[in-house]
Amino acid sequence: MAGAEFARPIVTVDIVLLTLQEGKLCVALLPRPGEPFAGIPALIGGYVHTDEDADAEAAVQRILSSKAGLEGIFFEQLRTFASARRDPRDWSVSIAYFALVPRGALEDSASTLELRPVEAAGKLPFDHNEIVDAAVERLRGKGAYSTLPARLLPAVFTMSELQAIYETVMGERLDPSAFRRKINDLDLLEVVEGEKRQTERARRPTTLYRLKMPVAVFDRKI
Amino acid sequence: MAGAEFARPIVTVDIVLLTLQEGKLCVALLPRPGEPFAGIPALIGGYVHTDEDADAEAAVQRILSSKAGLEGIFFEQLRTFASARRDPRDWSVSIAYFALVPRGALEDSASTLELRPVEAAGKLPFDHNEIVDAAVERLRGKGAYSTLPARLLPAVFTMSELQAIYETVMGERLDPSAFRRKINDLDLLEVVEGEKRQTERARRPTTLYRLKMPVAVFDRKI
Repeated sequence: MAGAEFARPIVTVDIVLLTLQEGKLCVALLPRPGEPFAGIPALIGGYVHTDEDADAEAAVQRILSSKAGLEGIFFEQLRTFASARRDPRDWSVSIAYFALVPRGALEDSASTLELRPVEAAGKLPFDHNEIVDAAVERLRGKGAYSTLPARLLPAVFTMSELQAIYETVMGERLDPSAFRRKINDLDLLEVVEGEKRQTERARRPTTLYRLKMPVAVFDRKI
Repeated sequence: MAGAEFARPIVTVDIVLLTLQEGKLCVALLPRPGEPFAGIPALIGGYVHTDEDADAEAAVQRILSSKAGLEGIFFEQLRTFASARRDPRDWSVSIAYFALVPRGALEDSASTLELRPVEAAGKLPFDHNEIVDAAVERLRGKGAYSTLPARLLPAVFTMSELQAIYETVMGERLDPSAFRRKINDLDLLEVVEGEKRQTERARRPTTLYRLKMPVAVFDRKI
């Protein structure tokens, strides 16, 4: 291999940005700005800029910021999709990430973002359907024993809201008292002192919670 | 992004090839054939050949075959390491994989392979120490609930050999009857009919087992 060089592939990052809308897990798409597939909604992504990105994560942050107006959100590397056939332009590497945001975080950011339920995302360009499926599988596979689903909630939430998120992500109903016991056993939450919320259903104001662990420890197994 | 092009990074695959030697989990290294780090033992890897590799997995197979004489062994994508700083030549992407083989599979293959315990791999070139650590973490994280550790054994093995592999991978002693009960509950193994092995310890010949699932279903959660 000494000194040998080979034609280099295209290298991009692509981000499966997931949020909840109307009780459904949705993926955020952006119309592609140019060929191939110009104007067709696709995953948020772009070339690695070797002149300015320190690493792949820096490319993800730059693209989330410039294309979706998002700063400081949770993301994690998913898997790399790399083949001669996935992009009509050339041999192509997509380092894929998935990101989770509360719906509210998208309000002012990107009016051009289109949210589609992951189960009905339609035919996406490249192998983006496969990348979305891998992200959903990762989230569901980890959801049962991680705090990942809580990333879809605002920082402060009720126990019912938390349970609803887990139910949506996992696609199954959970028993409220068993859920509360499991969450308490896991010691993931802390009560937000001095704040309660009056909901329609409950007679007394509802306790509010937030994740105990720092944001950096996002993926602790539970 | 329409039509825009950026200087493309180097793209390689690197393989953390793990096996067991003298009861220790070891990584297989090869002296680098050229600069940078010429002659220094490093992970088995190489450039993606865009003119002949259909995808990253094809590159892994080509490199395992040409550099280590290995065909048809188990491997799985680990994570991609991509940054401006990891390779002195240029902005560089390493799509990292890990592979598991029984020690016997390396006998005639690569006499140039050097096996080092993962806990004492020494200082490796690039970020290869970090890649080895990620592979070991993945194996240990999954080991407790997957059939991955059994990939380190020959196709046919005794229950004691299987337990020893799990103990080595997980770094903890396991109770034999609890281990046997768990493995039986999981329904992973089948008895190799008509074959038994006489060991020194046991008075009667010992039952031999093999994995029940096809090789392709290598990573079923248990």
